Amino acid sequence: MEARIIFTHEPIIIPPLALPSREIGACLEFQGIVRELEQDRKLAGLQYEAHEPMARRHLARIFEELNAAHPCAEVIFIHRLGWVPVGEASLFVRVISAHRGEALQFLGEAVNRLKADVPIWKRS
Amino acid sequence: MEARIIFTHEPIIIPPLALPSREIGACLEFQGIVRELEQDRKLAGLQYEAHEPMARRHLARIFEELNAAHPCAEVIFIHRLGWVPVGEASLFVRVISAHRGEALQFLGEAVNRLKADVPIWKRS
Repeated sequence: MEARIIFTHEPIIIPPLALPSREIGACLEFQGIVRELEQDRKLAGLQYEAHEPMARRHLARIFEELNAAHPCAEVIFIHRLGWVPVGEASLFVRVISAHRGEALQFLGEAVNRLKADVPIWKRS
Repeated sequence: MEARIIFTHEPIIIPPLALPSREIGACLEFQGIVRELEQDRKLAGLQYEAHEPMARRHLARIFEELNAAHPCAEVIFIHRLGWVPVGEASLFVRVISAHRGEALQFLGEAVNRLKADVPIWKRS
């Protein structure tokens, strides 16, 4: 599996889809978007910070582990850092695979583990 | 929930993302792509046909049922019909919701039920 991990301080630009083989049957994309209401407080946006080298290492390991359980062809992970206004994406993940089951499992677990284990913080 | 169901004989064009409120936190998109190998046979593509009015009714009911279990703000469903070459999408589904869990459940179950229950056929 090829894994691309990108951090950016600019609005996320979704990379064009390029299929690495004729055996790709599923492309799954997730955008995590900043919501206005968090615990009944109205926000204008969120400020994201990361320990980038550590976050990259965590993510690479998570993706390797998930790929062993749910083999996929490619994952692209883009996290925006700095100020992200309400209505804009802080996170983009694309997973492509032969069959949809693997991509759905991979993506769901990847985002859960991102929130639990990876040194990326947000504050309002 | 707003549901849009589209059948097209042209290549699928992904609609621009428009958020219906400031409380959308998740956008999940799936593309089902025609693969070259099906049961060890090399294909050039697949031919899709649908009983469109019946497929629309089935899909509308499926989306209503799924929305009751996993409330989402919007689903856009686009299925291509006619000849779809290997490497191109026959299916696009976008689900947007406040939280990612609902969108992941909705989308996974929607595609399973599409394959099981909806009068859309493919042949090589």
